[in-house]
Amino acid sequence: MKVGLDVGGTKTDAVAVDEAGEIVGRVRLPTGWGPDAVAQTVLDAIAALGSDAGVDLAAMRSVGIGIPGQIVPGTARVTHAVNLGVEDFDLAAALTPALGVPVQVENDVKAAALGAYALHGGTGTVGYLNLGTGVAAGIVADGVVQRGARGTAGEVGHISVDPHGPVCRCGQRGCIEALAGGGSVAERWGRLGALPVRDVFDAADAGDPLARDLRAGIAVGAAAAVRILVLTADVDLVVLGGGVTALGDRLLGDIAAELDASAEASPFMRSLRLRERVELLPTGSPAAAFGAALIGAAPTYETRETVTHG
Amino acid sequence: MKVGLDVGGTKTDAVAVDEAGEIVGRVRLPTGWGPDAVAQTVLDAIAALGSDAGVDLAAMRSVGIGIPGQIVPGTARVTHAVNLGVEDFDLAAALTPALGVPVQVENDVKAAALGAYALHGGTGTVGYLNLGTGVAAGIVADGVVQRGARGTAGEVGHISVDPHGPVCRCGQRGCIEALAGGGSVAERWGRLGALPVRDVFDAADAGDPLARDLRAGIAVGAAAAVRILVLTADVDLVVLGGGVTALGDRLLGDIAAELDASAEASPFMRSLRLRERVELLPTGSPAAAFGAALIGAAPTYETRETVTHG
Repeated sequence: MKVGLDVGGTKTDAVAVDEAGEIVGRVRLPTGWGPDAVAQTVLDAIAALGSDAGVDLAAMRSVGIGIPGQIVPGTARVTHAVNLGVEDFDLAAALTPALGVPVQVENDVKAAALGAYALHGGTGTVGYLNLGTGVAAGIVADGVVQRGARGTAGEVGHISVDPHGPVCRCGQRGCIEALAGGGSVAERWGRLGALPVRDVFDAADAGDPLARDLRAGIAVGAAAAVRILVLTADVDLVVLGGGVTALGDRLLGDIAAELDASAEASPFMRSLRLRERVELLPTGSPAAAFGAALIGAAPTYETRETVTHG
Repeated sequence: MKVGLDVGGTKTDAVAVDEAGEIVGRVRLPTGWGPDAVAQTVLDAIAALGSDAGVDLAAMRSVGIGIPGQIVPGTARVTHAVNLGVEDFDLAAALTPALGVPVQVENDVKAAALGAYALHGGTGTVGYLNLGTGVAAGIVADGVVQRGARGTAGEVGHISVDPHGPVCRCGQRGCIEALAGGGSVAERWGRLGALPVRDVFDAADAGDPLARDLRAGIAVGAAAAVRILVLTADVDLVVLGGGVTALGDRLLGDIAAELDASAEASPFMRSLRLRERVELLPTGSPAAAFGAALIGAAPTYETRETVTHG
C-alpha cells in the first residue's frame, strides 16, 4: 500500500492506494504553518488514514508528497513554499525517521498532472493546467512527469499573451497568470468575498463592466495556455484544475467559446480540435494526492526522469 | 557511412557522415519541383557525394531526409510540402529500390533540431527555432526529437502573443509567425528585393517608420518564442536558424534587447537568464542535413519515439 498527500495552503488531502491502484482510504486535515507544522500535518494525516479511514498502516510501503513549492532537482528539498511558510526544508529527511518508509516530494502541480494522467487511463500525453491563485501546468508523457532542463517546464503562467494586458505580479504585462490567475483577478476586482472569482462571474452575468472584462480575461488566458500546451508540447488532452475551476461549466463554457473563436478564424487551429481536448478535473478529485502516491512508490523515479531529461 | 539530406525549397544540402560522426563530404544542388523531381534530386545529390565529394557510396548504410512538410506518423509519407510541389508522397518507397538501403524521412525543422542538438554536444534539452518564411520549432531531449501526441509539438509559430497584432496567414491575429516569419514581414513590407528582411533592417536603421515597426515585431515574436520554449518545454538552449537569421548579430542583438527588457521587468524572467540561452546557428551550418543523417541511421528510431511519446 502506498500513501500520497497533497499538502495545500489550507488543507492537506491524503489517500492510501492499494496494489491494484485503487484508493482504499482518504482523509483531509487543515495544514499547519511553517516547516515543523507541515511535517506534523503529514504525520497526522497518515495516522488519520489508519484511525479514521481504517487503512492498515503496517502495509504502507512508501509516501509521496505534493507541495506548492519548488523542489531542488534530485532531492526532497522544498524551497519557496510561501503559502506554507516554508522557505527551505528537507521534508523527506524530517519524515523518514518517523515513517520508516521511503518518502518522495514533488511540486503539487506536477503531482496533480501525474494523478490526472493516471486517473485518465495512463496513456498518451496529458497537460494539467492549474488555475489557482497562480497559473502553472504539468506535462506527463507516457507516465513521465516532464521536468525539463532547469525545472521550469510547464511554467506557462508567465508567458505574456498581450503586451497591453494587466501587469503581472512577476513584473511583466499580459501574462497568462495576470489574466487567469485567481490572485490577480481578486486583486483587480478589489472587493472582499469567499470566492472572488465566483463573485466576478455573477457580477458579469448581471452586467457589471469590470466583472465582464475580468471574466473575459480569465477565458482568454486559460485558452491561451491550452493552445500553448498543444502547440509546444502537443499534449493529447488538457485537464483543468485548481480553485478557479470551482466555476465548473460556466468557466469551461467561456474557454470553449474562446477556443471556438480561434478555430473559426483559423483552419489550422480548427484542425487541432482543441475544444474536444479540454476537460475539467471533477470537483474534489484526489488527483494531486493520487499522483503523489504514484511518485512516492516509483522505484525508478529518478532513473525514469533521467531517461527523458538527463 | 550514413547520408543525410536537407531538401529545401530552392536548394538541397547533402552530407556523408562517417562512423565517428564526422562529416566527410558535402554537396548542394538545386531542388526539383514535384514528387518525381524531388526524388530525383535526392538521387542526384547522393551521386554527387560520390562523384564530386569523393565519398565511397558502397559504404553507405542509410539515408535520412529532412523535408519541409508534414510526415504521417510512423511512415515516410510526406504531405503538404507546398514549397516543393508535393501534396502526398511516400518518398522512402520511391527511393529505397534505387538506393538499396533504409530511408527515413522527417520534417526539416525537426531534423535541424536534432542536428543542432548533436552539433552542440548531444546532451540536455535543445530547442531549435526556425525563423524562415514561416516559424516553427523542434525540441530535442536526450537525443529524442519530441513529436507529441499528434505531430504539432513545436508549432509555436501559431501561438498568438498580441491580440492586436498583424493578421497571420493562418487567420489568427498576432501569431509569432505573423510577427517574425519572413513571409509575413516581406508581405507587409511590400517592396521587392532579394532578401526583404535585410531591406527592412537597413531601412529601419535609416529611420523608416514601417521598417522600424516590422523590425521590432521580428524581435518581439522571436523573443516570445524563446520564452515559450523555456517556460513550456524548459529547453536548456534555443538555437535560432532559418533564412531570417541571415541578419546575424543585428537580429540577435534585437532579440537580446527584448529578452533584457522582460528580465528587467521581472525577477522571475531574470532568473531564467534567457539571453545566455540563445544562439544563432552559424551561417551555412549543415545542421539539418546532419540531423537527417542521424535520423536515417537510428535503428531504434521508431522505438525511441515510442519510449517517450507512445
